[in-house]
Amino acid sequence: MRWSQLFIPTLREAPAEAEAASHRLLLRAGYIRQLGAGIYSFLFLGWRSALRITQIIREEMDRIGGQEFFLPALNPADIWQETGRWEQFGETMFKFKDRAGRDICLGVTHEEVMTDIARRELRSYRQLPQIWYQIQTKFRDEARPKSGLMRLRQFIMKDSYSFDLDEAGLDVSYRKHYDAYCAIYDRCGLKYKVVEAHSGAMGGAVSHEFMVISDAGEDQVAICECGYAANLEKAKSLLPPVTDNEAALSPEEFSTPNIKTIEELAAFTRTGPEYMAKSLVYMVESKPLLVQIRGDHQLNDAKLTDALRGVLWRPAHPDEIRQYFGAGAGSIGAVGVRGIRILADEALRGRKNLLTGANRDHFHLRNVTPGEDFDAEFADLRTVQTGEICTQCQKKKLTVAKAIEVGHIFKLGRRYCEAMGAKVLDAAGKEITMVMGSYGIGVERILTAAVEQNCDEEGMFLPRVIAPFEVVITPVNYSEREHRDTAEEIYREMLHAGVDALYDDRDERPGVKFKDADLIGVPYRVTVGKKVKEGKVEIRDRSTRQTTDVRISEVTKRLRSEFFR
Amino acid sequence: MRWSQLFIPTLREAPAEAEAASHRLLLRAGYIRQLGAGIYSFLFLGWRSALRITQIIREEMDRIGGQEFFLPALNPADIWQETGRWEQFGETMFKFKDRAGRDICLGVTHEEVMTDIARRELRSYRQLPQIWYQIQTKFRDEARPKSGLMRLRQFIMKDSYSFDLDEAGLDVSYRKHYDAYCAIYDRCGLKYKVVEAHSGAMGGAVSHEFMVISDAGEDQVAICECGYAANLEKAKSLLPPVTDNEAALSPEEFSTPNIKTIEELAAFTRTGPEYMAKSLVYMVESKPLLVQIRGDHQLNDAKLTDALRGVLWRPAHPDEIRQYFGAGAGSIGAVGVRGIRILADEALRGRKNLLTGANRDHFHLRNVTPGEDFDAEFADLRTVQTGEICTQCQKKKLTVAKAIEVGHIFKLGRRYCEAMGAKVLDAAGKEITMVMGSYGIGVERILTAAVEQNCDEEGMFLPRVIAPFEVVITPVNYSEREHRDTAEEIYREMLHAGVDALYDDRDERPGVKFKDADLIGVPYRVTVGKKVKEGKVEIRDRSTRQTTDVRISEVTKRLRSEFFR
Repeated sequence: MRWSQLFIPTLREAPAEAEAASHRLLLRAGYIRQLGAGIYSFLFLGWRSALRITQIIREEMDRIGGQEFFLPALNPADIWQETGRWEQFGETMFKFKDRAGRDICLGVTHEEVMTDIARRELRSYRQLPQIWYQIQTKFRDEARPKSGLMRLRQFIMKDSYSFDLDEAGLDVSYRKHYDAYCAIYDRCGLKYKVVEAHSGAMGGAVSHEFMVISDAGEDQVAICECGYAANLEKAKSLLPPVTDNEAALSPEEFSTPNIKTIEELAAFTRTGPEYMAKSLVYMVESKPLLVQIRGDHQLNDAKLTDALRGVLWRPAHPDEIRQYFGAGAGSIGAVGVRGIRILADEALRGRKNLLTGANRDHFHLRNVTPGEDFDAEFADLRTVQTGEICTQCQKKKLTVAKAIEVGHIFKLGRRYCEAMGAKVLDAAGKEITMVMGSYGIGVERILTAAVEQNCDEEGMFLPRVIAPFEVVITPVNYSEREHRDTAEEIYREMLHAGVDALYDDRDERPGVKFKDADLIGVPYRVTVGKKVKEGKVEIRDRSTRQTTDVRISEVTKRLRSEFFR
Repeated sequence: MRWSQLFIPTLREAPAEAEAASHRLLLRAGYIRQLGAGIYSFLFLGWRSALRITQIIREEMDRIGGQEFFLPALNPADIWQETGRWEQFGETMFKFKDRAGRDICLGVTHEEVMTDIARRELRSYRQLPQIWYQIQTKFRDEARPKSGLMRLRQFIMKDSYSFDLDEAGLDVSYRKHYDAYCAIYDRCGLKYKVVEAHSGAMGGAVSHEFMVISDAGEDQVAICECGYAANLEKAKSLLPPVTDNEAALSPEEFSTPNIKTIEELAAFTRTGPEYMAKSLVYMVESKPLLVQIRGDHQLNDAKLTDALRGVLWRPAHPDEIRQYFGAGAGSIGAVGVRGIRILADEALRGRKNLLTGANRDHFHLRNVTPGEDFDAEFADLRTVQTGEICTQCQKKKLTVAKAIEVGHIFKLGRRYCEAMGAKVLDAAGKEITMVMGSYGIGVERILTAAVEQNCDEEGMFLPRVIAPFEVVITPVNYSEREHRDTAEEIYREMLHAGVDALYDDRDERPGVKFKDADLIGVPYRVTVGKKVKEGKVEIRDRSTRQTTDVRISEVTKRLRSEFFR
């Protein structure tokens, strides 16, 4: 296509609020424009890339036997009420009434609609397995939509759903998706990791996320050279041993004037925080819960939710803490507490003689031994930290890194099919509740991750298969006939050969054209300049910035054979 | 693909409420399922067709230089308030508040968002023309969503928008769309008419609709053999002359006990309704308006709106009529009326000695002459009827027919660009408000119209390019090895040759398979049966039901060369 006839509104500067490189560059390259908080328009180049990504997704889904549907975004309330998610999604779901006063929402995901179709249409085990997917817009009223395409209020998702007779069937459907997702990311040129993940609001026991390590990411993962990788919400680790030399002594109160934080207590007592039990208070169904965690550890919200089996919780207010413990948040502990549930992190199991708050302002206790001085249920509650030991290889140290979640697959089990009565007859004629999986890929996330992995200060160089064009042809001096004619000739030849070329036929200064070409994500540039007199043009690989002189007559062939990845 | 592995939930019966053939068949063939009022899920076969239709649209839009965008469905209120359409669309627009309390709506169309991009990004006449399009979901809270895909609350539309420097530019962009739309319908195999249309809420002076004549349609068009075609909202006609022999006499009241309707008055007076002026009362900005129209004519709402320059109106209530005219609706007329605006249809211009109400219950007037006995503004207000004379050829009779609107194109002019301040600098450096066009195609409407034009009681036979598969291969007896092996062989050969074949590998009775094949819209069937022994199979054209024996070795070649349209 000819640049002069296209709408490619490039910018020299990105808006100041654009923090991530991908956000800055997608704006500068004229891929997207913001319409509102978490709401973006795709312009020509951006949508061209997005269409290529969706086509790759479609092909890989078809390859595993997925059947493409297209479900409504407008959803009546009743199916969401059947599964309890009308309430569960809370304000994240856009809810409103139609002109007849009926409750409507915009689909945040489509387990309910798919299960509704399955229960009406599937009757026999012989119809299983089914894999149904769609590529469609999802709506989520995020509390804090992030600028850029990372956390949007409407976004494009390929979501698929598998229905099987039993867990063994689900394992097969799940594996197919796992492999298809790998194929999709591989084709999109992404470097990614598959990590164990937390299932959250979706439910189900097993889930994996596909993560692209990037500082622009909003998730955190723990990874090990041995191959272990998990979302921090799920990650486990081994701790270097802490030696509690002595036998368990009796708790002993001591004065700690104005000491409230772990750091202050450590400095005051000259004791490492690993010898302390930190006390945190939460309200769970209007009852207090006391959490004990090692002084140098952080509580993980998702793990707490799991330990509470999904029951909602919130941090206790200062007055609630004083009411139940008789002291401020910085001076409380587990010793002597009655009638309050205590959850302790596994890292405190078997420890002795710890420091804790005394439930009296300005006082702490030493020699507190969990299990002896207070009764607690133990659970995995802490967030893994860089430098801890991998549980899988039991040797190497874990690294915690930021990551962009580009996909998430779930073994849902029977949660939805049971709630909605989706059953089939098995071979023996018995009614069986189907087993379901759910699988999602974010199209904008793939584009964002691809930009983050393929950019520099001057612009982006997207992997060829998802770039809006494969090559840009730039005559250095458009007003010079020889440059123009040669560029035109190469352009026509490439079109004929099926190379998706963008021809920069604008009569602009070379600097402007080179800057734009460097910016807009096209991986290769053919520069038609002075060397035309020697019958040569230049192929430039945008990612390496290396240039190669080639004969004009060979440019298409060599571009394809030597450069295209 | 293999039928046994697909989800094609065919039904022997359609739900009773499905009236249109397209609705019945799309349900029966497993193309769609209803989720709520005016809300449908596309299943595998339906979406496969829809994707083919959208691909044809995309190709033709790209051919005229259209650039594909993808705009948000979530729209902030402010841009709609700028053009006044936040109020204008009323309850048709889904409106709600987000969690931050901001007003949000779902896009019913996208003039505002496109114009917002244009005003921010376009600076110079050199950037014009631009044609921007998208294929995307629109949301409209219809008062009476119809069952089936005809009047939906969410539907897929290709909408495009042109920006030009002046009207001459708009003419070119408009013509390009006109031609592209014809190409799209031609490729989709539709028989259609292009008609002059009313612009409605969109505004602008000129618009055309693309109409498929069908009893399932919700629109009405007047058509003439000479080529004239117009939506009834816009259509004009010539009337056979009515002779009012005498000179204008003076109005004379006469008793008409209990006579209220035109029919009753005609029977009572033995006078044809063409000799009567019917009186209708409307409230326009809280003032009464009296409309005079010939007794045998119908008022056209769209024409009344035009005559009132878009000002909102409603029928007057009975008590309002009595308040202003001193009589009931069946006994009112224009004579003696003071201080009330009177609009008369052009067909009453120059007429003499008509019958009208006397503004006194149970009395009418004879010898009423418009222009003499009352003052009226004349306007085109009536609905054209079958049998009236075409204004274009002035010879032939018009036919009024029901039609499905499959596209609508608008010359919007400066309405949106002016309201939103979308200007560019012209060659002389002067700021010029851009001139805009807007163009829409409904994807579900194309599918619906194609079914209506290509169906019978047993099912549908879609045009090959938009059918979900090009051919279905049916072994008559799957358990017979020769049938199965030959079918399998033909299937593989077709796949290899790029023919999109559905292989019915189900071990079902022949009757079931034939019935399903007849139903699901695939235009050709290859039947593998007894003649295999002679080295032959049968090609069946679903639309004509004709069968042709062909040699197995030639089936793919002959299907392509002799059958594919």
